[in-house]
Amino acid sequence: MRQQREMARADAGSLRQRTARMEVETGPRRFHDVSAAVDGWLGEIDAGEGLLTVFLRHTSASLTIQENADPDVLRDLLDVLDRLAPASGSYRHGSEGPDDMPAHIKTMLTGASIAVPVLNGRMDLGTWQGLYVIEHRARGHARSLTLHYLGT
Amino acid sequence: MRQQREMARADAGSLRQRTARMEVETGPRRFHDVSAAVDGWLGEIDAGEGLLTVFLRHTSASLTIQENADPDVLRDLLDVLDRLAPASGSYRHGSEGPDDMPAHIKTMLTGASIAVPVLNGRMDLGTWQGLYVIEHRARGHARSLTLHYLGT
Amino acid sequence: MRQQREMARADAGSLRQRTARMEVETGPRRFHDVSAAVDGWLGEIDAGEGLLTVFLRHTSASLTIQENADPDVLRDLLDVLDRLAPASGSYRHGSEGPDDMPAHIKTMLTGASIAVPVLNGRMDLGTWQGLYVIEHRARGHARSLTLHYLGT
Repeated sequence: MRQQREMARADAGSLRQRTARMEVETGPRRFHDVSAAVDGWLGEIDAGEGLLTVFLRHTSASLTIQENADPDVLRDLLDVLDRLAPASGSYRHGSEGPDDMPAHIKTMLTGASIAVPVLNGRMDLGTWQGLYVIEHRARGHARSLTLHYLGT
Repeated sequence: MRQQREMARADAGSLRQRTARMEVETGPRRFHDVSAAVDGWLGEIDAGEGLLTVFLRHTSASLTIQENADPDVLRDLLDVLDRLAPASGSYRHGSEGPDDMPAHIKTMLTGASIAVPVLNGRMDLGTWQGLYVIEHRARGHARSLTLHYLGT
Repeated sequence: MRQQREMARADAGSLRQRTARMEVETGPRRFHDVSAAVDGWLGEIDAGEGLLTVFLRHTSASLTIQENADPDVLRDLLDVLDRLAPASGSYRHGSEGPDDMPAHIKTMLTGASIAVPVLNGRMDLGTWQGLYVIEHRARGHARSLTLHYLGT
């Protein structure tokens, strides 16, 4: 393991926080790259160095960070989620349609909250990383996210 | 994607942090809704706007945010976890009983840490979201959580 | 549920943040315990009470908190990840080798970001918890992490 390298520091007087609500119109069963929209908000609030938390306020869609280069990766990931939570599975919960319980399972396996350090006013993602909302339902929805920033 | 809408802002002078330990007595293989207990603590410390981090200090129980309406959803999720990590599986690690290794697997797939923005003194959960501790062992335990709040 | 017990508090004047980049040289398909290195950084920056966020800047390796006692647990977890994302699976994405798409799947199921409260200058992990980077590729890599600390 190599030495750590300091990237930023800030003391009490320069810290502040901002919270915003963002809505994403999703399409059926697909990944939506929200990286540019989130970085856009960081620009609007003139963020410097800090911590961004993205929280999705739903239980049949989720958040993930994944490869943003080859769209086939995202298609394969959707297939895998279908295999882990098949629509043809036998579930107790069925009142909201056959795609609802698989959507809850997929959300449990991927999560609703991601924290990302912010450097130079942008999420400090790796070269191939994108931040995605995954819509698990068979129809698109208006999905609500809360963005929280704490930093300079 | 629609415009972002600001919900809260705070500057350096008004930020503070609080950390607490919370214990949850679990029952065997089940979901425990801790949303009210966590919001109760936010009330006690007079939280306003900020960020809450919930951390579970164990490797055979985990945290998730899931639907709080139909209890059948939680039963189905337990079944799915059993299917992904069967008690009848063939594992090297068995010294702590046949339910221990499946519990570690379920913890890896769901996680031990969740960050949730706080607005108006409560977790900014969606209408159908609840915060759950999932006990994966075949017997109940006293589970220890650390709650961290940073905000106004 | 028992009463919450306050562990730490701090007001605005004493809060500060630090961000660092850390590199980890991984070996093929294995868990790397980075707990000591991360706690070492917290010592270097003289951290007190606060929140640590660890973020991995890759999509074919991931972060998890798991048992640090019996190494068989980690071997079993690698087997389970192979079962959930078999190298022999049929995937669209194959241009980076047969181990690449399984690595993305494993990353989606485990995650790239973990937040851990800090008490007395160390991650507030449970007795049996360790923080791990999981290398999912068939060869080792230099993996880059961002560490963010906010607290006293």
